[in-house]
Amino acid sequence: MSDVSAVKALLFDVFGTVVDWRTSLINDFTGWSQRRAIKADWTALVDGWRAVYTASMEEVRQHPERGYVILDVLHRRSLGKLVEQLKITGLNEADLHYLTMGWHRLHPWPDSVAGLVRLKTKYIISPLSNGNVALLTNMAKFAGLPWDLIMSAELFEHYKPDPETYLGAAKLLCLPPEQVMMVAAHNHDLKAAQKLGLKTAFVARPGEYGPLQKYDLEARGDWDIVASDFGGIADRMGC
Amino acid sequence: MSDVSAVKALLFDVFGTVVDWRTSLINDFTGWSQRRAIKADWTALVDGWRAVYTASMEEVRQHPERGYVILDVLHRRSLGKLVEQLKITGLNEADLHYLTMGWHRLHPWPDSVAGLVRLKTKYIISPLSNGNVALLTNMAKFAGLPWDLIMSAELFEHYKPDPETYLGAAKLLCLPPEQVMMVAAHNHDLKAAQKLGLKTAFVARPGEYGPLQKYDLEARGDWDIVASDFGGIADRMGC
Repeated sequence: MSDVSAVKALLFDVFGTVVDWRTSLINDFTGWSQRRAIKADWTALVDGWRAVYTASMEEVRQHPERGYVILDVLHRRSLGKLVEQLKITGLNEADLHYLTMGWHRLHPWPDSVAGLVRLKTKYIISPLSNGNVALLTNMAKFAGLPWDLIMSAELFEHYKPDPETYLGAAKLLCLPPEQVMMVAAHNHDLKAAQKLGLKTAFVARPGEYGPLQKYDLEARGDWDIVASDFGGIADRMGC
Repeated sequence: MSDVSAVKALLFDVFGTVVDWRTSLINDFTGWSQRRAIKADWTALVDGWRAVYTASMEEVRQHPERGYVILDVLHRRSLGKLVEQLKITGLNEADLHYLTMGWHRLHPWPDSVAGLVRLKTKYIISPLSNGNVALLTNMAKFAGLPWDLIMSAELFEHYKPDPETYLGAAKLLCLPPEQVMMVAAHNHDLKAAQKLGLKTAFVARPGEYGPLQKYDLEARGDWDIVASDFGGIADRMGC
């Protein structure tokens, strides 16, 4: 068993790891569109939106001369293209804003809040997410996530998995990387963190991408903790 | 009465406004030194430490080429000089670290936590302090301060009252300045915030500097709210 006794802070990936973005968005948009009499395949929109997520951040990474662009803005830009591609009609500017802000209104997985509450008694807990600060702050209030502080890629002007995010978070906490643990449902996130000396915890979220999920169904790396939910992480961390 | 109905977030000065740094440090150091059999005039040390606070930040402001220096480091540097000036002997490196970390172990004023809990139900609440992120995070856990997020001068690499701090905080929250309220026991902090369009709330902390306090005994500006404690601010903000 890996030695995690020096860990002082846990950093959490958020989309997929803490919150169920897919079900939350589909339900939110379906309810809203019924009241508004707008018809669309919201599942296709949501899956399409997430599918272009990585590419939208890669564009920011490839063009540092344009400056850092927060995720709310990337979401809004991607939405504009998708609405056209999917031929969804009848949406005005306020509607597109409402849909974009849907990413601030995501529900946690059933075990998330209880696990965070336990972990908070003994450790510093913070998101380390590509979501911007306002998004993560609004989501925490909406979903009752009891963060000690909020750390976002925005603070470092680098998206994960750029090293600046993991090392920047450790630096803000005045902790060496080995006293910080990254928690994620995504193997690539943990791989980047481990390479920089952080401890790692994998939590399986096999339903994140819906019934046809192909990736991250299980741990694929030598992670310090592998758990099926946040309760399992709290158990292993002695909370 | 000033219109504060558009406010979405409250930013709090911390040292003196939320926590009683002077009593906390004097009590902490007195108890610690009795166990260690170290003799010193801790009141003189604490007052002397705070007296050089502004000058230590001004040095960072005057020398941008040296890079931003966090408050923990400024505190440690000032302490070294003061220990020499006050001829305190018998302190090793670990002792000096313990004393410096005293700024992470400050107790709230009696009304602070209850007022923050009320305000948090309706608003985003965050510190906006010259204390570094780790200091504010550790203090929040120590004192039970229920922040939604932690914003520090460190995030903007500018100390208050530089405009970058107030405007940087509003930008991270994706809010225009007029939807953000600065809460402080110090008129100069509110003056800087008001000049940039933020709303302002003054809370009197006439005991902050001890029995001989001369400044900030009362509001000296056209602040949106003037209160005697955080409960009064919560009343005015409809919580």
